[in-house]
Amino acid sequence: MQVVITAVGPDNRGLADPIIHYVTGLGSNIAEIQMYDHDEQSLFAMLVRIELDEDRWPALRPELTAIGQSKGLSVRVWSPEERKGKPRLALCTTVRPEPALALLRAIRDGQVNAEAAVMLGNRPNCRSLAEQFGVDWHSVGDDQGVADDERILDVCDEYEIDYIVLARYMRVLPPSSCWKYAGGRIINLHHGLLPAFPGIRPYHEAFASRMLTYGATCHFIVPELDAGNQIIYQSTFTASHGMKLDEIIRRGQEDNEPHCLVEGVRRVVDREIQLHFHRVVAR
Amino acid sequence: MQVVITAVGPDNRGLADPIIHYVTGLGSNIAEIQMYDHDEQSLFAMLVRIELDEDRWPALRPELTAIGQSKGLSVRVWSPEERKGKPRLALCTTVRPEPALALLRAIRDGQVNAEAAVMLGNRPNCRSLAEQFGVDWHSVGDDQGVADDERILDVCDEYEIDYIVLARYMRVLPPSSCWKYAGGRIINLHHGLLPAFPGIRPYHEAFASRMLTYGATCHFIVPELDAGNQIIYQSTFTASHGMKLDEIIRRGQEDNEPHCLVEGVRRVVDREIQLHFHRVVAR
Amino acid sequence: MQVVITAVGPDNRGLADPIIHYVTGLGSNIAEIQMYDHDEQSLFAMLVRIELDEDRWPALRPELTAIGQSKGLSVRVWSPEERKGKPRLALCTTVRPEPALALLRAIRDGQVNAEAAVMLGNRPNCRSLAEQFGVDWHSVGDDQGVADDERILDVCDEYEIDYIVLARYMRVLPPSSCWKYAGGRIINLHHGLLPAFPGIRPYHEAFASRMLTYGATCHFIVPELDAGNQIIYQSTFTASHGMKLDEIIRRGQEDNEPHCLVEGVRRVVDREIQLHFHRVVAR
Amino acid sequence: MQVVITAVGPDNRGLADPIIHYVTGLGSNIAEIQMYDHDEQSLFAMLVRIELDEDRWPALRPELTAIGQSKGLSVRVWSPEERKGKPRLALCTTVRPEPALALLRAIRDGQVNAEAAVMLGNRPNCRSLAEQFGVDWHSVGDDQGVADDERILDVCDEYEIDYIVLARYMRVLPPSSCWKYAGGRIINLHHGLLPAFPGIRPYHEAFASRMLTYGATCHFIVPELDAGNQIIYQSTFTASHGMKLDEIIRRGQEDNEPHCLVEGVRRVVDREIQLHFHRVVAR
Repeated sequence: MQVVITAVGPDNRGLADPIIHYVTGLGSNIAEIQMYDHDEQSLFAMLVRIELDEDRWPALRPELTAIGQSKGLSVRVWSPEERKGKPRLALCTTVRPEPALALLRAIRDGQVNAEAAVMLGNRPNCRSLAEQFGVDWHSVGDDQGVADDERILDVCDEYEIDYIVLARYMRVLPPSSCWKYAGGRIINLHHGLLPAFPGIRPYHEAFASRMLTYGATCHFIVPELDAGNQIIYQSTFTASHGMKLDEIIRRGQEDNEPHCLVEGVRRVVDREIQLHFHRVVAR
Repeated sequence: MQVVITAVGPDNRGLADPIIHYVTGLGSNIAEIQMYDHDEQSLFAMLVRIELDEDRWPALRPELTAIGQSKGLSVRVWSPEERKGKPRLALCTTVRPEPALALLRAIRDGQVNAEAAVMLGNRPNCRSLAEQFGVDWHSVGDDQGVADDERILDVCDEYEIDYIVLARYMRVLPPSSCWKYAGGRIINLHHGLLPAFPGIRPYHEAFASRMLTYGATCHFIVPELDAGNQIIYQSTFTASHGMKLDEIIRRGQEDNEPHCLVEGVRRVVDREIQLHFHRVVAR
Repeated sequence: MQVVITAVGPDNRGLADPIIHYVTGLGSNIAEIQMYDHDEQSLFAMLVRIELDEDRWPALRPELTAIGQSKGLSVRVWSPEERKGKPRLALCTTVRPEPALALLRAIRDGQVNAEAAVMLGNRPNCRSLAEQFGVDWHSVGDDQGVADDERILDVCDEYEIDYIVLARYMRVLPPSSCWKYAGGRIINLHHGLLPAFPGIRPYHEAFASRMLTYGATCHFIVPELDAGNQIIYQSTFTASHGMKLDEIIRRGQEDNEPHCLVEGVRRVVDREIQLHFHRVVAR
Repeated sequence: MQVVITAVGPDNRGLADPIIHYVTGLGSNIAEIQMYDHDEQSLFAMLVRIELDEDRWPALRPELTAIGQSKGLSVRVWSPEERKGKPRLALCTTVRPEPALALLRAIRDGQVNAEAAVMLGNRPNCRSLAEQFGVDWHSVGDDQGVADDERILDVCDEYEIDYIVLARYMRVLPPSSCWKYAGGRIINLHHGLLPAFPGIRPYHEAFASRMLTYGATCHFIVPELDAGNQIIYQSTFTASHGMKLDEIIRRGQEDNEPHCLVEGVRRVVDREIQLHFHRVVAR
């Protein structure tokens, strides 16, 4: 079975060795190792993807977690094949409710074969949505909407989340969060076509360049790499000359973005595609 | 009536004055003047767009042409409202026949309300297409496919062309040609989404950036300005993960590009949109 | 003599005609006309550069100003050859004093052959600098530093300014201001190398891309065109590996930027270079 | 001591495991692992950087080479601390001789503390330079200048090269070559300022954007990553308005580029800087 191990700590001395030693000692096949050292932030991170005999699985997480505790590392062990039931999603939101709403409906209707385990928001706007669908809600922002990034991960760990879905969540996850859930577990909805319009105002920028094609992009978040390369799904619509920006944004937000997120999440939970060495490939 | 005057000559001394003097003497309303001086190429160019009383029209072209001849300028006078019949198109081609074929069919079927007055090619590939639809053909390239840019304009002048359509014509028109037919008379089909993929291999570049959205752009060619801003129409299609580049290009060339060109030309000849100070606006 | 006429008004009906009619009636040679129509902002603007017989000069400004008043246009007439004394500068500032200080010293020492006629600031930081050099000071910002763009132009008009120098003035001039002083009269200091680093944090961006070359750019501001093309002067310095961003910024602000502005302004007031059809050329 | 191990093979099955198992078995400290899998080219590559006890060094290369042979991998083991004498350079050239000439002189004069062990060229132009300085020469191009990339690596292996210097070598090394000499062993001279002007005609592009600052960049080549981030040294010069492109290129080629390469190579061989997780840092 495929297993993804992530480890994050303050430096590279003593981080890589114990985990790699343990993994090689298991006799598992190493499929991928990525390491990252960002001196200026005192952040060292590693992802190890292995092929493991199933009978080794029960001991793996406890033992690696124990190694992490003894070495002062934040270690996570995850397998897309671990869970017998549906994959568990955390939906992160800010203001716009449409993409989360569309995803909750698609889950309810059996179109997306997953479980909405928990919803989080750095703003309270989508709380009523969580209540409507009977999903646990956690507020993770302060009065100014600044998110508590540690709290987000704690909630996701507590709810044993498989995939974090950023449903128009308008804040950037820090590199340490991206590394802790690395390996294709963070799905973002960007409200513009990547890689052309990566900024926070893609409708405005596309409008300013007088494009007639507008789009949204569902992609994996991969730490330290251009987000444009991990595209899961893109959908577009066409504006006519003279259409006001407000009208274009409305069409994008109410129709195109929700569709894009639902289809993107469906592809991930149905395991039609997967992340392989920073690239999305068909399975 | 709206009239566009273009003048091209070797320098700016003595070019602007006689034409502007004549036009102001007519009592016409000046809507737009654009001038261009490119020292390094000894090219001076001007576009004047005016609102003219219809009874002044018959004398305008002969008199401005005479001014041009006496001053050594290349002067053209054109009005989109001049012709009582259908607009006359010149189709420029190179190798790919699909967009020209789709346009010829749309004209035949009354979907595009124009006349295919002449076809040109810097390569002989589309000659049989011209024969099939009974359109005059002119070869304008040498053995290596280098085009005779002067010859192209002579043919367009001779056939009294309203709009030059670059139907996957793979050469760049020189600035002097762009100026001579300035004012929204040159329609190009670009086989990628502008402004993100402006180069000559947009399929390859989009593929390399791992996009799933591919597109084509129909736009006016405007001298000395970023082509991305004069978009007439854009259409897109979506690739799936694992789709080969060859298959993507095939879908684009055989389906998406022809559709894009036909709809773009339709919008121009139906005068749904027009060029106004370097921007395409709805009429 | 070379004369630049600018006119700004709410639309293009009735703006171009009276000025062009008047100018052609004078018998002057038209060297350049640029027009601009930005529907969405109800702003129409025009620049006309002419060659005029000197004896026509005294009447030109009063008569064109009268035309402007009768038509509701904001008209300005300026000639770089008009003034017998030194060119008059307005120095616009925000927080950083170094570039303005260097320019004031260079003027005092005869290195830059101009007069510092007035200083303006949307922040009060450089006020003491104006007092130190005995230059009139005008505060043009509110409590949040938002500038009164109309007031800036009023002050420049009142002081009969030839050139507006943006000495680390950190706000964007609106298109209408750029047009009113079009023709190479607004000199900006940008604290990064153009065109590579056009944003407001060029040191940070160059540092993030791990460049070792840092620079500043002195350029004319030209409305509606990419600023990178109107470069008057650029100067650079080299950082070593491990140099902190703070240290790099300090070197840039205290040494490289002031030098860049002084040399740039010197080239303009000594008329070594000039703006010609959106390009800077040697005279 | 610091040791860099690179391994390249056709897939990731069976490549990572034997090398990582061996290395962890040595008790060495793992400082960095990078892996790369490019499905479409059947190329799998890995870099492992370790800290090794010196007494383990003599056995390391033979044993890892044997592992490589038994598994069908191309394995290289290198340490910057291995050689007691001067580092050995391979100079790769095409047409322009100036950068290689400057480096050979700097080596002769003791300014760069290295040995020019061998020169290679895909064109014969720099052969006489090799003869003049008594350096072995190998032609690695065919009649059209197409290089034999395998032959280049064979020559570098045969001459026990520490650093490959691309002295205006105008061809792209394939990913497999970059991986085989990964870890900061390939030094390139780019004749433009990175990251702004990455193409093959940086002088022309900077001239077209009307810059006044021209530059060259000496950088490590790092497979699969933007070259702009591994800058060793950059040097610039300033053009004046009206300076012809030919004159700018001449100054760059004859003066600025040679200086840039010499200083860049000096920094590497003096070990003032080194590559650390894709970034150049001061030691």
